[in-house]
Amino acid sequence: MTRVRVHNLSISLDGFAAGEPQSLESPMGHASQRLHAWMIATRFGAALMGRESGTTGIDDDFAQQHEHGFGAEIMGANKFGPPGWQDDADWRGWWGDNPPFHTPVYVLTHRPRALIEMDGGTTFHFVDASAVQSLALAKEAAGNLDVRIGGGADVVQQFLAARLVDHMHVVQVPIVLGRGAHLWSGLEGLEDDYDVEVVASPSGVTHLTFEKKTL
Amino acid sequence: MTRVRVHNLSISLDGFAAGEPQSLESPMGHASQRLHAWMIATRFGAALMGRESGTTGIDDDFAQQHEHGFGAEIMGANKFGPPGWQDDADWRGWWGDNPPFHTPVYVLTHRPRALIEMDGGTTFHFVDASAVQSLALAKEAAGNLDVRIGGGADVVQQFLAARLVDHMHVVQVPIVLGRGAHLWSGLEGLEDDYDVEVVASPSGVTHLTFEKKTL
Repeated sequence: MTRVRVHNLSISLDGFAAGEPQSLESPMGHASQRLHAWMIATRFGAALMGRESGTTGIDDDFAQQHEHGFGAEIMGANKFGPPGWQDDADWRGWWGDNPPFHTPVYVLTHRPRALIEMDGGTTFHFVDASAVQSLALAKEAAGNLDVRIGGGADVVQQFLAARLVDHMHVVQVPIVLGRGAHLWSGLEGLEDDYDVEVVASPSGVTHLTFEKKTL
Repeated sequence: MTRVRVHNLSISLDGFAAGEPQSLESPMGHASQRLHAWMIATRFGAALMGRESGTTGIDDDFAQQHEHGFGAEIMGANKFGPPGWQDDADWRGWWGDNPPFHTPVYVLTHRPRALIEMDGGTTFHFVDASAVQSLALAKEAAGNLDVRIGGGADVVQQFLAARLVDHMHVVQVPIVLGRGAHLWSGLEGLEDDYDVEVVASPSGVTHLTFEKKTL
């Protein structure tokens, strides 16, 4: 059965998944690479960045889960491009000709455009849809595989609030960002519906997993 | 040399150290005992509550540090009593005749009153003072011993913002409170001045320690 999963969602101690302001030059705002340095250091991150080597161990073990078993992704407009990308007819995402998704990707936007077929099996679909509606599309596309909610924080928050997420992996980085895109707003009582497990990594980050309780 | 320390400061995943509304009947608001259940379960907590037994292990090891080596405490008005306690001339704190401090305690309030000597060595001093001013008083009283910043979140935040805290122990409980007394506000960049270490406990809570960097 298709499960809905979130992986490698990095947040600060104060719950921000990105800094501000976000721009073409600085996609994560004042957070720069600090939220994702743990991942870039791993073998998983090295492969993404075209480097040859990276760390193995707990951080890499968690990071690799991001890739396994997905048939579709849903992402927010803020993940697909910098503010204003909807005004640029040529914008095709941050990831070059061969994005690391290799599945249909549903981009939530109030200004949809024609789909874009990329190399390597990634197709960007632009949909003006609710969480529930977009999930129906993504599940249809994913077949027996899972659906990844790719972020940003606002989209993950929306799916969590609707209890549509089956599994979430959050990485807490020991920095205080003070401002940016906040994950936890509007999620009071989340623990009633999720089992939470925590593992501290020797790298200094903390891995939290949220597994939806079975009724 | 006197060090300024915070211990057993329990917060939710979204950074709240107490719920709301706080009252005589419900000192922690809608958080009730959920933020401190980990501590109540320990041998340390059992002794505080007058019970005979409690858990040993990592949670108890951390909890016990709350008691060792202190010569004075500073606390905020919100810790000393429920909203409006200043209007009750007979209010002597939550802790009965023999409070668990056994040192001078400086209560920060804009409405100071005469000091109260309790059994067991605790004396409550009521001061209308800044963080720096109250710390001078507490250090004088503590002699060679340490000063504990007892909370609530607003007072710890104020001392952290001024970089007056040498060591802080925070316990992150896997619940999302959504509202209440928030710890992290106004602390952007705290990691520049503190080394952070994280340990996950089998009980499900996470212990974070912040140690001020030496220059």
